Amino acid sequence: MAEKKMNGFIIDLDGTVYAGDELIAGARESIEYLQQLQIPFVFLSNRGNYSREMCKAKLNRFGINVQIENIILSSTVTAKFLEQYYFNDPIWTLGDAGLEEELRAHGLLIAEHPELAEWLVITLHENVTYDDLNQAFRAVRAGARIIATNEDRTFPRQDGDCIDVAAMIGAITYSTGRDVDLVMGKPSSMMAEAALEQLGVEAEDCIVIGDSLPSDIHLAHKANMKSVLVLSGSTKRKQIVESEWQPTWVSDNMWSFLRTYQTTGAGKNDRSI
Amino acid sequence: MAEKKMNGFIIDLDGTVYAGDELIAGARESIEYLQQLQIPFVFLSNRGNYSREMCKAKLNRFGINVQIENIILSSTVTAKFLEQYYFNDPIWTLGDAGLEEELRAHGLLIAEHPELAEWLVITLHENVTYDDLNQAFRAVRAGARIIATNEDRTFPRQDGDCIDVAAMIGAITYSTGRDVDLVMGKPSSMMAEAALEQLGVEAEDCIVIGDSLPSDIHLAHKANMKSVLVLSGSTKRKQIVESEWQPTWVSDNMWSFLRTYQTTGAGKNDRSI
Repeated sequence: MAEKKMNGFIIDLDGTVYAGDELIAGARESIEYLQQLQIPFVFLSNRGNYSREMCKAKLNRFGINVQIENIILSSTVTAKFLEQYYFNDPIWTLGDAGLEEELRAHGLLIAEHPELAEWLVITLHENVTYDDLNQAFRAVRAGARIIATNEDRTFPRQDGDCIDVAAMIGAITYSTGRDVDLVMGKPSSMMAEAALEQLGVEAEDCIVIGDSLPSDIHLAHKANMKSVLVLSGSTKRKQIVESEWQPTWVSDNMWSFLRTYQTTGAGKNDRSI
Repeated sequence: MAEKKMNGFIIDLDGTVYAGDELIAGARESIEYLQQLQIPFVFLSNRGNYSREMCKAKLNRFGINVQIENIILSSTVTAKFLEQYYFNDPIWTLGDAGLEEELRAHGLLIAEHPELAEWLVITLHENVTYDDLNQAFRAVRAGARIIATNEDRTFPRQDGDCIDVAAMIGAITYSTGRDVDLVMGKPSSMMAEAALEQLGVEAEDCIVIGDSLPSDIHLAHKANMKSVLVLSGSTKRKQIVESEWQPTWVSDNMWSFLRTYQTTGAGKNDRSI
């Protein structure tokens, strides 16, 4: 009898594990289940305004104990890209402090003045000011190329949807007349590759779990992975049929999928549960 | 002998009368000259984050004494447009307090919540915060149409060029996926019409004085007026030849033009001085 092949899981955070400051039902149990069975998993999030340390601390507060290696953010992949190809280039950031923290954790240099930067990295900035926008603008006017950690338009907060990175990108591109050179976040292949490298499994053995059709399920399609759309985040069931990115499975949340996976072996065949 | 035909002057402010907190050489003398000769003039500025009262107070500080009727801002023309066609519509603003002051001065209503607004009016916001952007975003998501007082990309400040309204527009349009419905500022015909109505002269008898090719000289072209490009603001002489909007005259500043106009009668013929 053939040995059972081990899957790896790529798990989104916002809308899949937590929503703002609230843990999604069954999320902790899901991670404990994967850890007990030693099934490899990695959190893959488009958040670029957190560092992995900040994200680990947030998960710890929810009672989810993971290593920093289990977390890959769009800020991480941006930092890895710059570390690999442009290590000596000074960088300017438009975003919350977590982005700069993640860049510095990879040994990258923050420019002393915006005009000295070779790259402007844009992410969500929940405390953005006019001066922040103006300095980013001056970096680009002086020749900096633009990387966006992601280009999400909104993120959910307790008081409703809030503007996300897209607002920061629009402010800079519309005022400078310059386009973004690179977008790092899901569904980019760079995010998929970083996750696969960490998991050490083949794409065909990977299952992506997430709440976004254009980022999570799209990424799974591009990278030839299976996928679970969870309804615990921003997507309503009726939106699925209209999407060009169809998930392999649909589930109320991560835990309801994994319990079924556990008992029926869903994931070894392609039927929806 | 035919009576000398009286011209009217349409005069830009930033870069023509003052630059930030500094008066441009000869600007006060220019206005006094026009006042002494009772030549009609109006200030026409793309500034939408000031009210006319604020602008009058600024001019007074420079020793330039004018009536509020001599001042037309893009905030004024926006307010006049909404007053005429959408008087009962609640409005939300993304911009400095001067915009709201100008709208209220025209009897318009500011919405209690962004979601109640029929219009979002965008102008420069030199103290913009994330919350300001987010509220404007929510107004548009709830159905508000977008008016921009102008779409200038930069304005000059002592420490260099700063991002202008374009950044605010980009933040909202890129994050909502909605376009601006109306742009009020120069070179729009609405600005030209408001100026002509105040001056009470025909377009062909008007001379536009300003430092911007795409707004001041472009407006003159569209409205069939003569124009003076002054080099006291954002435009360098070498940029003129590359422009599709050629001024009738080029002068170092307003006063050097008016002195020549006074002594040689430039303005009655079409030769450059």
